[in-house]
Amino acid sequence: MKQILIARSAGFCFGVKRAIAIANETATRGAAEGAGGAGEPIRSLGPLIHNPQAVEELEKKGVRVVESVGEVDGGKVIVRSHGITRSDRAALDEKKVGIIDATCPFVNKAQEHARQLSTEGYAVIVVGDANHPEVKSIISYIEPGVPILTAISDLRDVGGIRKAGIVAQTTQSFENLMQFVSAALKAFPEVRVFNTICNATVLRQKESTAVAGKTDVMVVLGGYNSANTRRLAEICREINPRTHHVETAGELPSDFLEGVSTVGVTAGASTPQWIIEALVARIRELWSGETIRVEHYQ
Amino acid sequence: MKQILIARSAGFCFGVKRAIAIANETATRGAAEGAGGAGEPIRSLGPLIHNPQAVEELEKKGVRVVESVGEVDGGKVIVRSHGITRSDRAALDEKKVGIIDATCPFVNKAQEHARQLSTEGYAVIVVGDANHPEVKSIISYIEPGVPILTAISDLRDVGGIRKAGIVAQTTQSFENLMQFVSAALKAFPEVRVFNTICNATVLRQKESTAVAGKTDVMVVLGGYNSANTRRLAEICREINPRTHHVETAGELPSDFLEGVSTVGVTAGASTPQWIIEALVARIRELWSGETIRVEHYQ
Repeated sequence: MKQILIARSAGFCFGVKRAIAIANETATRGAAEGAGGAGEPIRSLGPLIHNPQAVEELEKKGVRVVESVGEVDGGKVIVRSHGITRSDRAALDEKKVGIIDATCPFVNKAQEHARQLSTEGYAVIVVGDANHPEVKSIISYIEPGVPILTAISDLRDVGGIRKAGIVAQTTQSFENLMQFVSAALKAFPEVRVFNTICNATVLRQKESTAVAGKTDVMVVLGGYNSANTRRLAEICREINPRTHHVETAGELPSDFLEGVSTVGVTAGASTPQWIIEALVARIRELWSGETIRVEHYQ
Repeated sequence: MKQILIARSAGFCFGVKRAIAIANETATRGAAEGAGGAGEPIRSLGPLIHNPQAVEELEKKGVRVVESVGEVDGGKVIVRSHGITRSDRAALDEKKVGIIDATCPFVNKAQEHARQLSTEGYAVIVVGDANHPEVKSIISYIEPGVPILTAISDLRDVGGIRKAGIVAQTTQSFENLMQFVSAALKAFPEVRVFNTICNATVLRQKESTAVAGKTDVMVVLGGYNSANTRRLAEICREINPRTHHVETAGELPSDFLEGVSTVGVTAGASTPQWIIEALVARIRELWSGETIRVEHYQ
């Protein structure tokens, strides 16, 4: 028996994977419904991921990217993993546009904690890039009139505020969060922190090295110019010297499975799922006739 | 007109000053009541301050130091600024001993926040020396059954705990608090911090340098072997070169007020109030005939 062991967190993070699955499902259902009739337009509010091939794939299925709510006048809109602001949501509701919500559950949590803190009398500190759509969506959930602080320098001269709550953009580093926590504890007697950082990158590295240690050969998929993929290959190679870093399955040497009964698979953050599936298909081909067990490692 | 400007936080911190004032008042009232009758015994549970002269002064007034609740069988007991445990308080109540509570209000706050966190479903992290009476008193206010964590190493392997609250012994350093906050944020999704650190030392330094900058000559009172007093003299001298560091007023050169119309005064943490008062008396003597305004700077 042969085995393919795939790191659960390989490639896109959970939230992006989920958003793409939701978009595909919506497009497929739309096409089926549209077969007999008009077929409602499906839009995605901003690109679902920063990967042109993946966006193109979705466009072929009828999901068109629009940049703002103003461009939408009916049909369905997919809200991507970053979430949207409360006012954009209200505007879509007013236009009676069907909202397909693919907001990442971790972003939902950050929004909810921001709202909760603001209703419980806390000033709200949002650690993140104030211009990022995710941060804009989090901030929009803070009740009107509640002080919002997004820069370390905001934490000085905050007369009258006794307690502050902190949430973070899900992709922030822990070190940056701690800088805000430290400054807040100097400024306010009470500081309540929700650690909303999603540790996808750390988790991916942890799972990938575990997989590398359990398998005969390890394949790391992802762009040669992707820093996070190169780092992934590097740490896997430390564990398993038979580690290949390739962009697609086709680049693997034909004999890479020689003497191998278990293959490990992982992928960088910008690697679409189909690249991973194509590798699995190629391994199945090379191992045709064998019983193959495909498992995910978590 | 002449002026004496005294740093508000000179000498003992607010909580210790208050405890001594309460003890003195109790002793005075006890003596007055005792004049016509038996005179109830007055005890202090542990020494009120770590200054032998001050403790001796209180003993002369009838305040005897006992080490444990077991030694008390009636009369009155003064609870010092560190506070006492809930069980010691209950034991005193049972013995019908009169409790004169001189617990520092900042320690009271830490106790109250610890209790509040434990009733609101938080595991409670107490940052401090677990053997210190103050920390024991804080911990005793945590409701039974709630996890109590007092070491960084406690913050690993805390399965099932989703949220933790942090309080600190009032004399802890901010840096130590931050180490616990950082470790807690790695272990729990929600961390609620009450910064119960009393910044008496930082405040004393801040006020003292401000006073040094506003006066013609500066006097820093406190032991030559006291690190915090030497540091105080050092930073005052940077602001005002006419800074004298002496243990008592008697050591000042006889001409230290020459050409002076304003004197600044501060004192290290272990300097009793009467040392400061003796200095003010000496200045009044040297300035006899002058109108003197004594002010506190905060």
